Amino acid sequence: MATAGKVIKCKAAVAWAPNKPLVMEEIEVAPPQANEVRIKIVATGLCHTDLYHLFEGMHKDGFPAVLGHEGAGIVESVGPGVTEFQPGDKVIPLFISQCRECRFCKHPKANQCVEGWAAERYDVMALEDSRFTCKGKKILQFMGTSTFSEYTVINQIAVAKIDPTAPLDKVCLLGCGVCTGFGAAVNTAKVEPGSTCAVFGMGAVGLAAVMGCKFAGAKKIFAVDVNPDKFEKAKVFGATDFVNPKDHSKPISQVLCELTNGGVDFALECVGNVGVMRSALESCVPGWGVSVIVGWTDMDDFSARPVQLITGRTWKGSLFGGFKSKDGVPQMVKSYLEKKVKLDEFITHNMPLAQVNDAIELMKHGKCIRAVLSVSPQ
Amino acid sequence: MATAGKVIKCKAAVAWAPNKPLVMEEIEVAPPQANEVRIKIVATGLCHTDLYHLFEGMHKDGFPAVLGHEGAGIVESVGPGVTEFQPGDKVIPLFISQCRECRFCKHPKANQCVEGWAAERYDVMALEDSRFTCKGKKILQFMGTSTFSEYTVINQIAVAKIDPTAPLDKVCLLGCGVCTGFGAAVNTAKVEPGSTCAVFGMGAVGLAAVMGCKFAGAKKIFAVDVNPDKFEKAKVFGATDFVNPKDHSKPISQVLCELTNGGVDFALECVGNVGVMRSALESCVPGWGVSVIVGWTDMDDFSARPVQLITGRTWKGSLFGGFKSKDGVPQMVKSYLEKKVKLDEFITHNMPLAQVNDAIELMKHGKCIRAVLSVSPQ
Repeated sequence: MATAGKVIKCKAAVAWAPNKPLVMEEIEVAPPQANEVRIKIVATGLCHTDLYHLFEGMHKDGFPAVLGHEGAGIVESVGPGVTEFQPGDKVIPLFISQCRECRFCKHPKANQCVEGWAAERYDVMALEDSRFTCKGKKILQFMGTSTFSEYTVINQIAVAKIDPTAPLDKVCLLGCGVCTGFGAAVNTAKVEPGSTCAVFGMGAVGLAAVMGCKFAGAKKIFAVDVNPDKFEKAKVFGATDFVNPKDHSKPISQVLCELTNGGVDFALECVGNVGVMRSALESCVPGWGVSVIVGWTDMDDFSARPVQLITGRTWKGSLFGGFKSKDGVPQMVKSYLEKKVKLDEFITHNMPLAQVNDAIELMKHGKCIRAVLSVSPQ
Repeated sequence: MATAGKVIKCKAAVAWAPNKPLVMEEIEVAPPQANEVRIKIVATGLCHTDLYHLFEGMHKDGFPAVLGHEGAGIVESVGPGVTEFQPGDKVIPLFISQCRECRFCKHPKANQCVEGWAAERYDVMALEDSRFTCKGKKILQFMGTSTFSEYTVINQIAVAKIDPTAPLDKVCLLGCGVCTGFGAAVNTAKVEPGSTCAVFGMGAVGLAAVMGCKFAGAKKIFAVDVNPDKFEKAKVFGATDFVNPKDHSKPISQVLCELTNGGVDFALECVGNVGVMRSALESCVPGWGVSVIVGWTDMDDFSARPVQLITGRTWKGSLFGGFKSKDGVPQMVKSYLEKKVKLDEFITHNMPLAQVNDAIELMKHGKCIRAVLSVSPQ
């Protein structure tokens, strides 16, 4: 490529400060260094975690940054030592790396590689060592990815090569939300055939969790949301029963326990609210009920009474659906191409990156499931 | 027996009210009704849960009661419909029943039978329907067992027949503490060979958890206690490393993470303190660490940050070590007779039931591991 080895000037949506709209800017993207890959981002989803960083996380040291971590693109060039990728490869950036060498990568139960940005930096969620500059300032790479930019540079341990026939404006959703929810049900909760499940929160992650429950053979899947407009979509992904906490004067956990003869087998919290986390646990049957925290928040403690675990419930958490990222994402792309998992149905809006602030407003007000932003022409 | 079908007058230690010493009284024990077994208690341990009910639980509706739930005895007579037991059988009363018919008994992962007193009554911990009277008053049966009495009456689903050669003044400990700790490691945490474990609290339950970790093949077992006098005993049961939180200015979870390159594989909380429950979780390695709440309290919520589960830890609880009681207790008796598990080493004091208040004082002040009270001559 003519651009290989050179600084690329391109468009990106820059988050200069918390609680401010993103600003479309021309940024400079340095060439990939050793073991790095420079990627032309074609499409990206907007995820609640982007909003969380911008509005709630209050990590003032995490700015200025380019947000976005649910993208798909094409390799533009590679740095020294990269043999796995070539210019032209279709790829998905990974906010969790998979180095295949560390003890977490080698452990069958773990998916949280120590080599990635995330190992030590949950408090900042931005890579200190960035390849971006704008107006002379270093711009951080949120979650090590930064997909709200026409070009980005990522270490090869955090890039997955995918099927060359995959439509990037769909499979970008596998970069975060869909894998997160689907895997939380399939890999973390390990939903069993014939079981009863409850999924709290019918955003994209919750809908993907519903899809995961159905994929795993659950017989009954409760969709729980305070916005009943979400239930029609939930049905598309396999929900069989629909509960709006606002319709009941009793706590929602009590309602679910009454509807299920004592509680569900598996509950998945896909909101990121510690009160809902407790409700999800309390909705589980004693003896064997498993509740999984999928939604993200680090603002508060979650809590419950010890007896609620002592009586046989298990509380787990899930990051990126428990998938080992480089292994899991290409498999999920394959499952989509084989029509075993849905992606198109998550997408309620398509717009150019320049309208990212409109997409943020839609998501803040619960008006979209996923907005996919087109970033660069393919 | 000459006593069959008749009311038996015998000695029992009655808890008339919270926060008062027990009183040795003559009580009347009614004959067993349908499906019930009347048992002559030969020996009983004193467990923290007895003290909890007496001093901390503040369940004023749980009195007057006969405490004690860690006993062993001999069947005196049986009620109509009982075919599994005969007078003379050696038995251990079970504070968790196993009816073998309910969905919890039939489920491979659960051990909390719905037919027992415990299914709905964790708040009271005493069986409303009692066979005891004293001075014209009904006396409740704590945890459905009441082993601080020369005779007690228990439903056959809550009695385990054991090897006739078993020494009752030793195997009584399998009625609660030793199964609880041992099983929490083996059945609930599912400690793996070669793993690193931490056990918090070196009372009988914690020591039994240490023994369980060793039995399961753990390579490194940290004993954690604020009383270093306990460490010598912990070594007997298999602890390899000893940590006193008072010796460190850092939080104990940080100390353990530093000593273990990032955290232990399995942590067991055997204190019943929500702060220690959090420490135990935070001592676990991300990715696959499992923390089990074994100690009992219902006074406070336990809590942690969502990220501590999201990064791959699992929080579980264990009641009676996850053993299905009628199946598990005879097996544990057999393991003791085959010298695969220790019991004698837990017993620091032997005394008659009449000295139960002395035993309570010893336990309150951490001066005993287990006091075994002789109740009736064999």
